[in-house]
Amino acid sequence: MDLRKHIEVCFTPREYEYFKGEYEIVVVIDVLRATSAICAAFDNGIKSIIPVPTVEEALEYQKKGFLVGAERKGQIVEGFDFGNSPFSYMKEEFRGKEVVLTTTNGTKSLDVAKEAETVVVASFLNLDAICKWLEVQDRNVLCLCSGWQDKFNLEDTICAGAISDYLINTGNFISEEDSTIAAKYLYLSAKDNCFGYLKSSSHRKRMKNFNLNEDIKYCLTPNQTNVIPILKNGKLVKI
Amino acid sequence: MDLRKHIEVCFTPREYEYFKGEYEIVVVIDVLRATSAICAAFDNGIKSIIPVPTVEEALEYQKKGFLVGAERKGQIVEGFDFGNSPFSYMKEEFRGKEVVLTTTNGTKSLDVAKEAETVVVASFLNLDAICKWLEVQDRNVLCLCSGWQDKFNLEDTICAGAISDYLINTGNFISEEDSTIAAKYLYLSAKDNCFGYLKSSSHRKRMKNFNLNEDIKYCLTPNQTNVIPILKNGKLVKI
Repeated sequence: MDLRKHIEVCFTPREYEYFKGEYEIVVVIDVLRATSAICAAFDNGIKSIIPVPTVEEALEYQKKGFLVGAERKGQIVEGFDFGNSPFSYMKEEFRGKEVVLTTTNGTKSLDVAKEAETVVVASFLNLDAICKWLEVQDRNVLCLCSGWQDKFNLEDTICAGAISDYLINTGNFISEEDSTIAAKYLYLSAKDNCFGYLKSSSHRKRMKNFNLNEDIKYCLTPNQTNVIPILKNGKLVKI
Repeated sequence: MDLRKHIEVCFTPREYEYFKGEYEIVVVIDVLRATSAICAAFDNGIKSIIPVPTVEEALEYQKKGFLVGAERKGQIVEGFDFGNSPFSYMKEEFRGKEVVLTTTNGTKSLDVAKEAETVVVASFLNLDAICKWLEVQDRNVLCLCSGWQDKFNLEDTICAGAISDYLINTGNFISEEDSTIAAKYLYLSAKDNCFGYLKSSSHRKRMKNFNLNEDIKYCLTPNQTNVIPILKNGKLVKI
């Protein structure tokens, strides 16, 4: 009997239905920028984040007096104070606070995955921490990439490939899906120069138009924090 | 004004809706084995192939006396004489004939793409021919991979990556989608040893169980024919 656990990669929230229910742990990834911002927020002492899929829900929370961030298509939604730039969350005022967040892709992934036994958040920022944590859980793992409006994206896939590569190399995990093999190959060819590799990626181009180069550089720099955000009763908290 | 045309890659028939309508030419790819079998069939003198998405439709044609092939999950459907092995179509009896075909993934892609201005069929078998033909069309091109039951697959993506790489290198085509960038990278890392590269792919494993290694070797060997099958009024014919 093969006691190894599965590590697989799902490219978009929409495809999650083909993977649903088979993995105890879902790792949600939205490198540019939701899950990077979430990791940065916890690293900077935020208490909890309530992810919501729609701007309407975010507005409801705003009316109730919550601190609310909202991003759509790479920009802060009008009427909200912050979006998904990791730097927004480094301010003193966020320490110990609970905030609400909705983003184009990342909070959508969190929403589709919410029924899974365990949902955690990964980015390059907490890559090492998440890999080591997953290694000792002895559970089947699915990396859920957020993509871009239900299309495949490169940066989430490479991050998922890094996690897959790490877990497979422990000898305790196997993969069977072609998406996982592809993610691993893409990571292996990108790992020595992630920033250069992603230069031509669609989302990088999109963000460049908004002068978000500092955000991108930060989000693509691995291992800046050990925090692992986990979803508990609809709220993200530090594990 | 940028006069270059687009070459992009769509990983699955289901994702086609995000690309639909923007490309004059759709190149349908199902390396293992539908589009390889179709190329082999035309190379061996078949007159036309009517692709149908369902086994029910295939049965209707069978009742009317047509030669009908049907494959599901890698095997010939009971009651039909052949499936999607390229070798089936090399028999003398197929020359000059019209046949009907339904397969798990490939005929589904042909079905979703049928409204496009031009739909052609590619595989490794006619790779060079299709690349050179596309190069001179001066039209936007979408490679539609058939995947495996709406999930990403590696062999179709690598074939699409080969076409993308060729067209981009002519200088007359550009790509913007991350799926195209990924397909190109995967092709570049696979091209020197496609058979080895795909050793661990999910579909290879699936087919190995049915002793289809000869089929796989044949389907992964580039440039065995110059035929380009094209969809005309619901039938595939030689261009």
